[in-house]
Amino acid sequence: MSKANRSRIQKLEELKRTKNIDAFLFTSPASIKYFSGYFFYFEYGPSPFQVIPAALLVFSENDATLVIADNEIDQLPALDPAVAIQPYGSYTFEQPLDYSRQCLLQIRDQLKKRLTGRARIGIEPNSMPLSIALSMTEHFQGIELVDISSEIAFLRAVKDEDELTHIRQAAALCDIGQHAVMQYASVGITELELFAMVRKEIEASAGMRVPIMADLASGPRTATGGGMPSNRRLAAGDLILCDLTPCLGGYWGDCCNTVAIQHSTPSQKLSFALVKEALDIGIGAIRPGVQAKEVDRLMRAHIGHYTHHSGHGVGTQYHEEPRIVPYNATELAAGMVIALEPAIYEKDYGVRLEHLIVVTETGSEILTKFEPCFEQ
Amino acid sequence: MSKANRSRIQKLEELKRTKNIDAFLFTSPASIKYFSGYFFYFEYGPSPFQVIPAALLVFSENDATLVIADNEIDQLPALDPAVAIQPYGSYTFEQPLDYSRQCLLQIRDQLKKRLTGRARIGIEPNSMPLSIALSMTEHFQGIELVDISSEIAFLRAVKDEDELTHIRQAAALCDIGQHAVMQYASVGITELELFAMVRKEIEASAGMRVPIMADLASGPRTATGGGMPSNRRLAAGDLILCDLTPCLGGYWGDCCNTVAIQHSTPSQKLSFALVKEALDIGIGAIRPGVQAKEVDRLMRAHIGHYTHHSGHGVGTQYHEEPRIVPYNATELAAGMVIALEPAIYEKDYGVRLEHLIVVTETGSEILTKFEPCFEQ
Repeated sequence: MSKANRSRIQKLEELKRTKNIDAFLFTSPASIKYFSGYFFYFEYGPSPFQVIPAALLVFSENDATLVIADNEIDQLPALDPAVAIQPYGSYTFEQPLDYSRQCLLQIRDQLKKRLTGRARIGIEPNSMPLSIALSMTEHFQGIELVDISSEIAFLRAVKDEDELTHIRQAAALCDIGQHAVMQYASVGITELELFAMVRKEIEASAGMRVPIMADLASGPRTATGGGMPSNRRLAAGDLILCDLTPCLGGYWGDCCNTVAIQHSTPSQKLSFALVKEALDIGIGAIRPGVQAKEVDRLMRAHIGHYTHHSGHGVGTQYHEEPRIVPYNATELAAGMVIALEPAIYEKDYGVRLEHLIVVTETGSEILTKFEPCFEQ
Repeated sequence: MSKANRSRIQKLEELKRTKNIDAFLFTSPASIKYFSGYFFYFEYGPSPFQVIPAALLVFSENDATLVIADNEIDQLPALDPAVAIQPYGSYTFEQPLDYSRQCLLQIRDQLKKRLTGRARIGIEPNSMPLSIALSMTEHFQGIELVDISSEIAFLRAVKDEDELTHIRQAAALCDIGQHAVMQYASVGITELELFAMVRKEIEASAGMRVPIMADLASGPRTATGGGMPSNRRLAAGDLILCDLTPCLGGYWGDCCNTVAIQHSTPSQKLSFALVKEALDIGIGAIRPGVQAKEVDRLMRAHIGHYTHHSGHGVGTQYHEEPRIVPYNATELAAGMVIALEPAIYEKDYGVRLEHLIVVTETGSEILTKFEPCFEQ
């Protein structure tokens, strides 16, 4: 079986041994996507017809079940072939809603088929609804719930080939978005109108709606590093800071450019040049074995302190391990995907640039292909 | 104090007595918005820097605290003056992330100040993270957690004047969206391009990004009632079914229109006329005291069965009580806000129309002002 097709569920075997775990119940969207391929479209907030869109039970590398709301089945992406599907009744109109009981019953049923006596279940306590936990512990004597969130976060840091394919696609949406900023930014339109064009181009390319976290701030708003697009109208001499973080089917991209409309000051030009150099220095430092904090230090040494991280891992979360921050001694490894985002914030403007990079065996490859460009 | 300014937290006093509750801990976005005014912008999914954006603790009508991630403070809307703010440490880059412990500590600290001995805490088990529940029960002997989800759902059904103001604003965004469909729908553009125009107009009016759940389907896609916008190009003779559910600062609107591009068949025209009549019949039946299921029955009696509800309450959730469904004997009451959405689905097309309505003392008032119109 190729590397791309090996189930990520196999990676849990070591954790099972070292922490003496009998089964896992994943409830965070990031872990569920990572292990099963299932992606919940979250742009509208929590559904009124579900306890949780899906919960992933893993008993062994050949025995995993996604307990999923039956109103999610229509939009299922390709799942890991090792994962069985067990729907629970969610939306109904001919009887009162009963999704809580239905969800808990299906999870209990899965456990009942496998558990005998005592069992340690690895869970994510911050994303596990109390209702699910109570239902398990009340019906199974001797169940012990074990927090494995931290182990999973580090396990997810190194990406498989098929994950890189997804992230490359998300990075391509980043490029489309940054290109749209250059193309459509003009005096007189609002930040929201510019963002509408950016999103339209991204969604046309994806052929579907794409959740996008975005800073799109102009003029003095760039001084604090960003903010959501507003009705502020672009003026000549404004900088536009656009940080785009799109999610394509559960994998995120991330990128940032800062563009000047028509003209800019010598101070702004210098800031852009320095931030661009810092980004290049950061990218140049990335290779297997270098400590995350060393990459952080090199970038800050070139341009001074900025009040946020220098970068972070990107995958099924838009910010994950390894964090590129002053305290982090984690050594980078081939397959890690990292966004680097040095910045200079002055009193009346800010410049931030960000590329998405994968650590390779010999160094790094830049996944976002747009060229940070200050003059439109 | 005017009705608009009375705290909704006062409404919990009766529930405290009848269920012998000492305090409440709300964790669902819908309840937190309802009682405190706090709204979390959810379009990007869960934050990697929070257990939960906020948790609302209510001890009495004069003693409530919103324990909130400190990276949410900048974007706080106007909160209920009875609610104190207690931030917890969320994003940090100079030390490792510690948001779980910080959040649990702040919640425990609030409880420690008030609880002596045994206490019954009203909670929402489907939205409460296990980590918060464990932290409470492990540190306070004699705490009992009581599920009050159902009581809160019915309590929220009748809206206050200030809530109606918010919902009217969301309904106005619905009208802008439906107007944009009529204005911009044309042969050759894609559903996604049309949706981009709809969203641009809505967001320009709001002056900010607006989460929008939307069916925007054309041609044969309308036969199943909807779906997200795609790259399908509009053709002459297509129907466009556009169901828009925007969220403005935590309160939702809801509406649907079905429009024919250039021409339509006699059968489609008849379906539109019948659905329009069913909608008018439903609206005409709405008044205090009528049972929800009677409104449902009258609409189905006119056009036959459709495979979804006839309507639902709308507020801090886009689907809430009272559900307008065959089983629901709930009597409507003044102040309830209801979306009615009769439909006819044929083999190759579908027609659905939806207005948002508030029950008044004498009947009803339609909040969405657009006129359902079949011909563009």
